[in-house]
Amino acid sequence: MVNNMATLMAYTENMAEEDRKLVSSLGKQVTLWCFDCDKDRIDDANLLSTKMMEYIDNTNLSVREKCISKYEPQGITIALILEESHLMVNTWPEHHVLQIEVFACTDINQKELESIATQTFGAKRVYVYKYE
Amino acid sequence: MVNNMATLMAYTENMAEEDRKLVSSLGKQVTLWCFDCDKDRIDDANLLSTKMMEYIDNTNLSVREKCISKYEPQGITIALILEESHLMVNTWPEHHVLQIEVFACTDINQKELESIATQTFGAKRVYVYKYE
Repeated sequence: MVNNMATLMAYTENMAEEDRKLVSSLGKQVTLWCFDCDKDRIDDANLLSTKMMEYIDNTNLSVREKCISKYEPQGITIALILEESHLMVNTWPEHHVLQIEVFACTDINQKELESIATQTFGAKRVYVYKYE
Repeated sequence: MVNNMATLMAYTENMAEEDRKLVSSLGKQVTLWCFDCDKDRIDDANLLSTKMMEYIDNTNLSVREKCISKYEPQGITIALILEESHLMVNTWPEHHVLQIEVFACTDINQKELESIATQTFGAKRVYVYKYE
């Protein structure tokens, strides 16, 4: 189940008009909250990193800096600084939760992110929040 | 001018009740969009990094990994992976814009972040979005 909250989450609506326009010109943000994921897969730093790098290659983004941190006893955070802004992944395997956030000044391939969440990481429910 | 959108932005409201409760238990997120900042100060990677590290020390957070990237001709992205989740800073000096995002499983000192934005980086308008 993919629940798209795009129209609900135009947070810039509350800004002064000039600020709203400026933020829109800087980029778009997509945040996916994914539930009931496969516990082991979202605790696999290599798999998460590989899938994110594939997404980046497939969508013609470029990585400048990469930070990966594995928590004990579980959980992973990946921060990728891109030429086009950033991609962040957080997982809480003990709760079967995966969060993916992309901020980019180019188009974001939301469908591919949804597919990674459901196909690779077994998410049963995905909520997509989009800010632009 | 600090505009607090806290009550407007409980994005988890749209989730199924069980998912909403789970996300709330994982942590809180605060995003600050800051406008009309001092162009030179938000393009100073050392100053940004120092101020964020001070914030982290003052609020008893701990850094695990640090990524800093300086764009040409301007602009900085800092990603700090914390014991308690993450802190991300993006600047667009050409537009006088600074964005600070903190996700943490402990309380976030929003007032200190606002103060950094206005006092150190000269922001004239700050919009605070809070998710919990």
